[in-house]
Amino acid sequence: MESETDVVALGSAIVDVIAHATDADLRRHDLVKGTMALIDADAAERLYAEMGPAVEVSGGSAANTVAGVASFGGRAAFVGKVRDDQLGGVFTHDIRSVGVSYATPAAVGGPATARCLVFVTPDAQRTMCTFLGAAVGLAPDDVDVDAVAAARITYLEGYLWDPPEAIDALRRAVGVAHAAHRRVAFTLSDPFCVDRHRAEFLELVERQVDVLFANEVEIMSLFETDDLDKAVDSVRGLCDVVAVTRSEQGSVVVAGGDTLVVPAALVADVVDTTGAGDLYAAGFLFGLARGMDLRRCAELGSLAAAEVISHLGARPQVPLSSLL
Amino acid sequence: MESETDVVALGSAIVDVIAHATDADLRRHDLVKGTMALIDADAAERLYAEMGPAVEVSGGSAANTVAGVASFGGRAAFVGKVRDDQLGGVFTHDIRSVGVSYATPAAVGGPATARCLVFVTPDAQRTMCTFLGAAVGLAPDDVDVDAVAAARITYLEGYLWDPPEAIDALRRAVGVAHAAHRRVAFTLSDPFCVDRHRAEFLELVERQVDVLFANEVEIMSLFETDDLDKAVDSVRGLCDVVAVTRSEQGSVVVAGGDTLVVPAALVADVVDTTGAGDLYAAGFLFGLARGMDLRRCAELGSLAAAEVISHLGARPQVPLSSLL
Repeated sequence: MESETDVVALGSAIVDVIAHATDADLRRHDLVKGTMALIDADAAERLYAEMGPAVEVSGGSAANTVAGVASFGGRAAFVGKVRDDQLGGVFTHDIRSVGVSYATPAAVGGPATARCLVFVTPDAQRTMCTFLGAAVGLAPDDVDVDAVAAARITYLEGYLWDPPEAIDALRRAVGVAHAAHRRVAFTLSDPFCVDRHRAEFLELVERQVDVLFANEVEIMSLFETDDLDKAVDSVRGLCDVVAVTRSEQGSVVVAGGDTLVVPAALVADVVDTTGAGDLYAAGFLFGLARGMDLRRCAELGSLAAAEVISHLGARPQVPLSSLL
Repeated sequence: MESETDVVALGSAIVDVIAHATDADLRRHDLVKGTMALIDADAAERLYAEMGPAVEVSGGSAANTVAGVASFGGRAAFVGKVRDDQLGGVFTHDIRSVGVSYATPAAVGGPATARCLVFVTPDAQRTMCTFLGAAVGLAPDDVDVDAVAAARITYLEGYLWDPPEAIDALRRAVGVAHAAHRRVAFTLSDPFCVDRHRAEFLELVERQVDVLFANEVEIMSLFETDDLDKAVDSVRGLCDVVAVTRSEQGSVVVAGGDTLVVPAALVADVVDTTGAGDLYAAGFLFGLARGMDLRRCAELGSLAAAEVISHLGARPQVPLSSLL
C-alpha cells in the first residue's frame, strides 16, 4: 500500500500549441471564443499549418490541475495516455519534473500524443481545438488502483467522456475511490462538452460526485437554464461541495445550505486565460485535501488562477507555495 | 531566377527547450553561464530528465535572425536541416508561419531534430546545451544556389562550424554569394565556438566576410586579448562593417575609420536574454539590406533585441515592424 497522497487525477494527456490570433482568425475557422472543439488528425494538420508561430507547453485540464496541486506542495498523481513520441516525452517530462507521480504506460502504436491548438486573442481569451490522439486509448488497466485508493481525492475531467473508450477506466477509478471511502471530484470542463454528455453528467453529479467544479456557463448548460441562480439552486444538495467560477467576479461555493462568495485575486496584466479553471481547481483541491475550510480552499483557487493567467501557458511558472 | 530577397541565412535548425534554473543547477551540471556547450544524445536525455518543467519554442541562432528580418517586413529565407519528426515539424511550421521561405528537405533517417536545452537563471541570463542531431547533416546539395544568389545578404552562424560535415555547404553558399556580388555576413556565435575554430574564423573574417557580428567576449576571444579596444583595432579594416554588441551598453559599429557607439533600447523587465544577439543581427541586417545608414541599422538591432529579452524565447512575440 502506498502512503497517502492528496489528489490523483484522470484526464487527457495533452501538449498545448499556443499562438496569438485575432477575432477574425476565430471567425475564419468557425470557432466559438472561450470554448473547446474536438478535431481529427487532418483538421489538426490543416489548422496548424494556418496558425502563427507557436509555443509548445504541456497541458491537459486535469494534468494542469495536479501540476498545480504539486506546485502548492501537495502530493499528486496523474493517469492519462500519451504515445511514445517526442510530444509524449515532453508531456511526461514536464509533469514528472514538478513532482507529480505519472506511470501510465505510453502507447507504442496508434495515433500520436494529443495536441490542443490554443488561439489566444488580444482580450487574453483562449479558444481551443483538440486532437485527442493517444489520449483516447486510456484503458481500465491503466488505472493504478493502489494510487487511487491512496488518494484523498480522485479528480476527473468531463473532457474524458469524449473518448468513449476511456469511460470504463473512469468508472473503475470511481469504484475504487468510493470503496476506499475517498472523495470524488469532477469538472464539467466546457459548455459544449456538457451538451455532448448532459445525461451522463447529471447522473454522475447526482450519484458519484462529492465535489463539483464548473464555470457559470457550464453549470447553466447542465441544467439548461440561462439563470445562474436557478442552476445553483438545482445543483445544491446534489453534491457535498460545488464551486462555480465566474472569471473576474471570483467564485461561488455551495455546500448544503451555505453559499460563500469569494473574490478573484488581483492580476495586473491578464495575458492568457488558458488554465484559469484548472488552476482554481488545483488550489481548491489542495486546500480540501489538507482539511482547510471552504473559504480558504476558494481563496487558494483564486490565487493559483491569478498566477496562471498572468503569462502564456496553463501551468504555473512560479512555485504556488511561494504565493502563500 | 527568383526575385530579390533581403537575407538568406544558413544555420542549425533547432528547437529550444527552455526552463528556469538556479545558479546551483548550472554548477551541478558544470555549465558556464551565458555560453553554449555541445552535448551528445545521451547527455541531452540525462540533462533533460533533471530539468524543470519546460517550454518548447523554435530557435537556432541564424533561424531566429531571419525570423526577425521577416518580422520587420523583410523577405528572408533559411537553409538548415531537421529530421522528419515532431520537433522538426514544429521548427518548420514556426519559421514558415512568420513568412520565412524554408525548403531544406528534412532528413528521413539518422539523429532527431536538434534541441537546445536553455537554462534561464533569475538574472535573466541564458546558458545553453545543444544536441546538434539532424542539423549536422546539412549538405552542399541542401544549399539553394538560386536563393543565395537572389539574397542581398547571405548570413552564416559560427555554430555551423561545429558539425564538420556542414562546412562544405557553407563554402558553397559563400562562393555563390560572392560570385553574384552579394554581401556575406557572419556571427562569431559564442566564445567557446571561437576557441574551437579560431584559425578558420580569422581566415574567414579576413577573406570572405563583409559584415561581422560579435559580442565583446567573442571578439576579444578571436584576437586572444582581454582588451576590447585592442580587439576592435585588430578587426577594423578586416571587414567592411563590424558590429560589436555590449548587452545593456548597446553596440559599437566599426566601418573603415569610423566608429559609432549606439545605446541599447530601454527594457522595463529583462526576462530572458536568449536571442538578444540574434535579434540585434536581424534589425541590423534588415536595415543594411534596405540601404539604411549604419547608425539606423544598429538602432533597429537594439530595438529588436529589446523586444526579445522582454519575454521567454528567442523569437519576437509582436511584429517588429509595429515597433518602427
